[in-house]
Amino acid sequence: MAKISRKAEQMPASAIRKLVPLADAAKEKGVKVYHLNVGAPDIASPENALRAVRENTLDHVSYSNSAGLIELRKGLVEKYYHKIGIDISVPELMVTVAGTEGVDMAIQICCDEGDEILVMEPFYTNYNTFAFMNGVTMKAVPTDIREGFRVPPMEEFEKRITPRTRAILISNPGNPTGTLYSKENMLALGRLAVEHDLFLISDEVYREFCYTEAPHFSAMNIPGAEDHVILIDSVSKRYNLCGCRIGCIVSHNPDVMRAALKYAQARLCPPIFGQMAALAALDTPDSYFAAVRTEYIRRRDCAVQALNAMEGVFSPLPMGAFYTMAEIPVDNAESFARWMLEEWRIDGETTMVTPAASFYKTPGKGINHIRVAYVLEVPRLVKAMHILAEGLKAYPGRTL
Amino acid sequence: MAKISRKAEQMPASAIRKLVPLADAAKEKGVKVYHLNVGAPDIASPENALRAVRENTLDHVSYSNSAGLIELRKGLVEKYYHKIGIDISVPELMVTVAGTEGVDMAIQICCDEGDEILVMEPFYTNYNTFAFMNGVTMKAVPTDIREGFRVPPMEEFEKRITPRTRAILISNPGNPTGTLYSKENMLALGRLAVEHDLFLISDEVYREFCYTEAPHFSAMNIPGAEDHVILIDSVSKRYNLCGCRIGCIVSHNPDVMRAALKYAQARLCPPIFGQMAALAALDTPDSYFAAVRTEYIRRRDCAVQALNAMEGVFSPLPMGAFYTMAEIPVDNAESFARWMLEEWRIDGETTMVTPAASFYKTPGKGINHIRVAYVLEVPRLVKAMHILAEGLKAYPGRTL
Repeated sequence: MAKISRKAEQMPASAIRKLVPLADAAKEKGVKVYHLNVGAPDIASPENALRAVRENTLDHVSYSNSAGLIELRKGLVEKYYHKIGIDISVPELMVTVAGTEGVDMAIQICCDEGDEILVMEPFYTNYNTFAFMNGVTMKAVPTDIREGFRVPPMEEFEKRITPRTRAILISNPGNPTGTLYSKENMLALGRLAVEHDLFLISDEVYREFCYTEAPHFSAMNIPGAEDHVILIDSVSKRYNLCGCRIGCIVSHNPDVMRAALKYAQARLCPPIFGQMAALAALDTPDSYFAAVRTEYIRRRDCAVQALNAMEGVFSPLPMGAFYTMAEIPVDNAESFARWMLEEWRIDGETTMVTPAASFYKTPGKGINHIRVAYVLEVPRLVKAMHILAEGLKAYPGRTL
Repeated sequence: MAKISRKAEQMPASAIRKLVPLADAAKEKGVKVYHLNVGAPDIASPENALRAVRENTLDHVSYSNSAGLIELRKGLVEKYYHKIGIDISVPELMVTVAGTEGVDMAIQICCDEGDEILVMEPFYTNYNTFAFMNGVTMKAVPTDIREGFRVPPMEEFEKRITPRTRAILISNPGNPTGTLYSKENMLALGRLAVEHDLFLISDEVYREFCYTEAPHFSAMNIPGAEDHVILIDSVSKRYNLCGCRIGCIVSHNPDVMRAALKYAQARLCPPIFGQMAALAALDTPDSYFAAVRTEYIRRRDCAVQALNAMEGVFSPLPMGAFYTMAEIPVDNAESFARWMLEEWRIDGETTMVTPAASFYKTPGKGINHIRVAYVLEVPRLVKAMHILAEGLKAYPGRTL
């Protein structure tokens, strides 16, 4: 039997998706599963985006330009980024196969094998997967759930910088924390990047999901950091078009964009129908976002209040995205999540959450944390939280 | 200015796509360009595939399973592979973001950084790009245009095997050569893989484009090589659905499929609308393929006869895919291709071909070769070949 590579053997499996077989097994037995485990909202995509796909008149589905349809690139620049105050031109934006490809490309553009990236912990687990695939080490800068995962002092970053450090990777608002960074945070990170000649890779796919009055401050608007910032974006969350697999990579740094195009050319082009939907989605009225935001604030408040009402549970109030982290009174959150799927039912229903240890790099950290994606409408969320609360009380590995 | 990685800096640009800006510039000046440079056929996609997308009733476009929609996986296994005599089960197939992702995954699954892959030269240039991205070296086994690029004796492979060799990568029918491998070729390659414990990665995306009476012999059907073969496939060419970005990776080796799923989970899922089209395309009647095949034979004969009628040009008759290679009487085929786009017009029209040096790994080889994709209908192909013929006569770097 031919042996697969060490890399493929050792590559971590997605923590977010690895319990999926257990959920499938439960469903096959007729159990209803409330999915709080994945950021897949139930909110309708904008009608104009759906209509663009349904009314397409293609008679053959050919490649687009590797950088994406020029109409989409122009549309994103003029109808979206300029409107939200990000001043870029078309050559500074390239369409990617969703945010995931953007992250993979950005890591490869910044890092050679053996290089290092700084990331605040907990972080989106696939960052680590893409780093691993590219032989790059993620170095974690710890943040604290009890302090709402706020950005630590810059010294905490500085003391982890080595000659192999090439970039700082952030997600703002954050997945899995829901933390929203202030303008001051961003300026400090920008200064740090410039001083140490690092890239600042800023994943802003949750930009439209901010729950404070202060506007989102994009890394693209850090003065003086123009050559250092790489923006990762996506239509997946913004327009509830996750399955379209369309995003973009943006940078003022021409070397970055030139390299991005080389990567893009190797995979030929982003999916056409998704590009069509993304193009039409640019005409989505502001009222769509306002309604979505109101809905998510309702869901967030429901989820976080329910969590904090559970004995021994702590969850900070997130100001962005649609996730919250929670510390729960169990020995091991992964065992608990498995037990929920395999054993725990109320009226034939159960709740699926994501164990959060894999969002941490430091061994042992987050072992009793879960990530909750509040992506269900409130009545269903109430049921899901109730099942979770009762499950926590009944769980044999409970530590209280 | 933050510096991009050495890898990103040194990564080769796509030879197939790097002349695109010149073509765009010509078009902006009103020049009509006949594209013989890229395998993007003008043939209509199956109506049922297009209809499935137009008639979709999604109200939000969510993720699919990372391995692809289960209906599509089952459909591919039962309606396609079983029908063509490839005996696989659903867990042995995973949906990929077209063949390109499949190739990238297969390379990563077989190879660690520093490992080697054997490939017959000339090869599809993006193989080298994906190898480069993964720190893997492609070692070329030469074939000869004058011998129709036939598979060389196995000793030619064996003498290039080192302790770092992990796989043999083939495309059958071949891009860029159009060469179709016989059952005997495949059995020999399979034996070689098994003997030396190598993977045999078989890119068969042009399987439906074979122009002999002998049936295509898939690497999946090499007896005894079950654990060694990784099949790469795609709906792009088969159904003229290039822009859907849907393909699959297939293997009897469970370690390979387990690793493939880990890669798949990191990028979340393949595009949904493309999966819908691919699913519906499975009901495409045989008459569609028969008509397409007849059409391509007509185009092939037109292109190859026209090429060989040009003084100093030699092109073997390809038995598969929709490409042919040609040796042309010029100093440098890339300079010639540029000159065609920048200078040469007949009645305001020009022809774009792909210079073939980058399909070779051996320095200097293929410098006077071009790849011609015969993807236009015959009347347009005739015009395109006429422009090429006249261009060759007028080209200042002509060597005759």
